[in-house]
Amino acid sequence: MSQEDKIILHWLEKSRSHRILWLLEELNLEYELKVYRRTKDYRAPPELNKVHPLGKSPVIEIIKPGRSTPVILAETGYMIDYLIRNYDTEQKLVPSDEDERELVNYYLQFAEGSLQPFLVSLLVNNMAKKMAPFGAGFLVNKVVSQINNLYYGPELMKALDFLENNLKKGNGEYFVGNKLTGADIILSFPIYDNVFGDLERTKAMTGGKFDVVTKYPTMKAWADMIKKEPNLIKANEIIDSKTGTSKL
Amino acid sequence: MSQEDKIILHWLEKSRSHRILWLLEELNLEYELKVYRRTKDYRAPPELNKVHPLGKSPVIEIIKPGRSTPVILAETGYMIDYLIRNYDTEQKLVPSDEDERELVNYYLQFAEGSLQPFLVSLLVNNMAKKMAPFGAGFLVNKVVSQINNLYYGPELMKALDFLENNLKKGNGEYFVGNKLTGADIILSFPIYDNVFGDLERTKAMTGGKFDVVTKYPTMKAWADMIKKEPNLIKANEIIDSKTGTSKL
Repeated sequence: MSQEDKIILHWLEKSRSHRILWLLEELNLEYELKVYRRTKDYRAPPELNKVHPLGKSPVIEIIKPGRSTPVILAETGYMIDYLIRNYDTEQKLVPSDEDERELVNYYLQFAEGSLQPFLVSLLVNNMAKKMAPFGAGFLVNKVVSQINNLYYGPELMKALDFLENNLKKGNGEYFVGNKLTGADIILSFPIYDNVFGDLERTKAMTGGKFDVVTKYPTMKAWADMIKKEPNLIKANEIIDSKTGTSKL
Repeated sequence: MSQEDKIILHWLEKSRSHRILWLLEELNLEYELKVYRRTKDYRAPPELNKVHPLGKSPVIEIIKPGRSTPVILAETGYMIDYLIRNYDTEQKLVPSDEDERELVNYYLQFAEGSLQPFLVSLLVNNMAKKMAPFGAGFLVNKVVSQINNLYYGPELMKALDFLENNLKKGNGEYFVGNKLTGADIILSFPIYDNVFGDLERTKAMTGGKFDVVTKYPTMKAWADMIKKEPNLIKANEIIDSKTGTSKL
């Protein structure tokens, strides 16, 4: 396509942002990529505050002809929706069936509203264990494990059970219909990266209660398939070549 | 309007669901209301598992002529978007300006993805303090306060600062443009209910560090305005008359 809009992606390592890089590749768009590193206490660096007041990533700037200020986009689910609505001119990622299109919309909200928060809180509690001062580790571990066991762990399992069942009863190997959609792209961070990407961490986060590979075989097969998506591989390679390390 | 679709709202007390009741009133739709109570440990009751596998609220069932199974909707942000797209035939809640319509879409994701999770985690940690067994209260308090002070508290404040600034520089008293939109409706639960609805709880959740009423005067004015929205008042009255108590 001839692309009038200039797109700048602000990409942060180990963050929700890799999905947007993948999507830009999927839509064959031209863009400028700005790479940010986390601080040593695992936060987004202060430079990102200049891009968007929340200081998070991903953020996209779109410079459009005839507009004096760029369009600034944040919130991954919204960005995926926006980019597909505006730039997927061939409907590559858009299902032809209306119910399936609605299901994609649902997943764009579910992933960020009802799945990612539990993973973040499990991760925060896991880090609290590690950061506990000498001598306090046992107590911190006891307190956060109790919170995880009573709330975040069961909520995460409920969400994963739900996704496993949805995949099983679906039409194909993808989350919606029989092709790649925004649903697979948004779920790639929580499922492919967070849950299956570091099994040791997942075990630690969930108190070692269950083995996700055995418990969720359909999702594991999906994660293995996602790993081979050519444009995700391309996104990984772009980051590798820019940073000299793996994206994760 | 003559309404062909039959709508059933599954409404849970003290939950994200009151916004959907308000929206149904705002759109002047006919619907059946099913009211659920929380269990004594503050969870959604098991009956909700029969409505949707995640067992949460709000959930809407829409029985459409010519369809053998109802459409089941979950995720508040998605439901607000769906209901407005399908039933706001007079564009009552839809801005005429494209940028403003996009901003509503953004807020539907922001509220559930980047604001509500911090409030939920602060609330969970706050409940952990209260539920600590006799003698352990001091230690639990110390651990969760540390997590709140390092992560959830600052993240919540960043989100509230952002909203306060957005309201200040906006065109009117509402979050988008100069009329009520889905943005105000989705933000009513985290801002009007959670933050300003129980100032003692907000103080406890945020470690008593700041007074939200003084720090966020524009949002407080918004919350006071929202309180007077006729269709929110009507939604409150419907719940009062069904349960004999206040919705909160």
